[in-house]
Amino acid sequence: LPLVAKLAPDDYVGFTFFVGCMAMMAASAFFFLSMSSFDKKWRTSLLVSGLITFIAAVHYWYMRDYWAAFEESPTFFRYVDWVLTVPLMCVEFFLILKVAGAKKSLMWRLIFLSVVMLVTGYLGEAVYRDQAQIWGLISGIAYFAIVYDIWLGQAKKLAEAAGGAVLKAHKTLCWFVLVGWAIYPIGYMAGTPGWYDGIFGGLNLDVIYNIGDAINKIGFGLVVYSLAVSKSSEA
Amino acid sequence: LPLVAKLAPDDYVGFTFFVGCMAMMAASAFFFLSMSSFDKKWRTSLLVSGLITFIAAVHYWYMRDYWAAFEESPTFFRYVDWVLTVPLMCVEFFLILKVAGAKKSLMWRLIFLSVVMLVTGYLGEAVYRDQAQIWGLISGIAYFAIVYDIWLGQAKKLAEAAGGAVLKAHKTLCWFVLVGWAIYPIGYMAGTPGWYDGIFGGLNLDVIYNIGDAINKIGFGLVVYSLAVSKSSEA
Ligand SMILES: CC1=C(/C=C/C(C)=C/C=C/C(C)=C/C=O)C(C)(C)CCC1
Ligand SMILES: CC1=C(/C=C/C(C)=C/C=C/C(C)=C/C=O)C(C)(C)CCC1
Repeated sequence: LPLVAKLAPDDYVGFTFFVGCMAMMAASAFFFLSMSSFDKKWRTSLLVSGLITFIAAVHYWYMRDYWAAFEESPTFFRYVDWVLTVPLMCVEFFLILKVAGAKKSLMWRLIFLSVVMLVTGYLGEAVYRDQAQIWGLISGIAYFAIVYDIWLGQAKKLAEAAGGAVLKAHKTLCWFVLVGWAIYPIGYMAGTPGWYDGIFGGLNLDVIYNIGDAINKIGFGLVVYSLAVSKSSEA
Repeated sequence: LPLVAKLAPDDYVGFTFFVGCMAMMAASAFFFLSMSSFDKKWRTSLLVSGLITFIAAVHYWYMRDYWAAFEESPTFFRYVDWVLTVPLMCVEFFLILKVAGAKKSLMWRLIFLSVVMLVTGYLGEAVYRDQAQIWGLISGIAYFAIVYDIWLGQAKKLAEAAGGAVLKAHKTLCWFVLVGWAIYPIGYMAGTPGWYDGIFGGLNLDVIYNIGDAINKIGFGLVVYSLAVSKSSEA
């Protein structure tokens, strides 16, 4: 039994799993180790950015090996990862808007919606695959409720009240959720049966999810990092 | 032999083991890395919170793999974990109340009671299963002695003497012990034979214990974290 896997040179899925794993580890080291350079007020946000990529690093380690062993989508681990990291991203929205007086209820609402989105998505993708369309629809509704809340709802008002660099960071994160997160439903449609069969059939679900994760987790964290940089140089 | 486990999509027990493991690791990173943001007086409490989730993370790593390999309750590791983490929670009570002059004897009394509770519980759950009711009863008495001490006994008086944020944190932790810890005897009754057979039979012992652990270990730590936050912003 070898301790290390051997992958085919053209195994692009495997390649993205390995690159993703290392990128997440490096990003965690970056966020954790840069904490002390910032004002206390921003450290928690950086810590949470680091936790998000750290959790992903651990799961990519698994998924990498799982792919190498079975050449099969590690859906189970994918969702274990998301069910922890996506709520933490909702916490980031809250932490950024706290300066403008965001209440915990905003955070809990976003967390609740994200959990609904992921649990129903898991049921459709892994457990009740022939009902993938219905579960995907419910999941999509929860997704749009999140989009609404941050783009037009309470979170938006708080961001405007805060203004300046906070408003700018919030806007960027909103684009991540609207465009970056939209990668996932595409992966879902590429990987499950439904009316959308002909459209996304040629794409590989795992490559899509891996690219999405790298953009969303590391990019999200970097937005928070930039905010901390601009706020700390202000003072 | 693959390096990684393969779980059935609807293996919810396995799912909670994996989510629990990762949540404990992330919580440990959070508590350890946030220590430096606080006043020295509060660092020990945060360190202990981190130790509790760190010990749990290691055991969940085991239990996860144990479950994946044998589809069987890892009772042995469960109690190895508890016998270390529950006394540390008693230490937390002491650390919080130290500002009000808590004596070491309070800490040792709580530790002693928690060890009695766990050793007798283990004997009933793992060794002498047909006497599960009697061992559970002794364990329950020790549990109520802890509840009495913190809710009405010496610990309560100290908390009232301290007042303010300390009293509030103590109260919250008391609720954790009364309600959050009560999850465990329910799991015990669901998993052992006794007069209670018909009542909790449908529940799964491991899912219950896993949810209980996440609430009690991470939640407990977050209460201490909030106390440190409110005390540090005061100064
Ligand atoms: C809408 C929708 C989905 C959305 C998933 C999303 C939005 C996941 C986001 C993950 C992130 C941001 C991960 C880590 O960084 C699912 C569940 C695929 C199911 C189909 C419908
Ligand atoms: C009363 C009682 C029990 C209590 C267990 C408790 C209260 C465990 C607490 C564990 C914690 C808090 C773990 C880590 O966070 C047992 C042993 C199940 C046996 C049956 C009677």
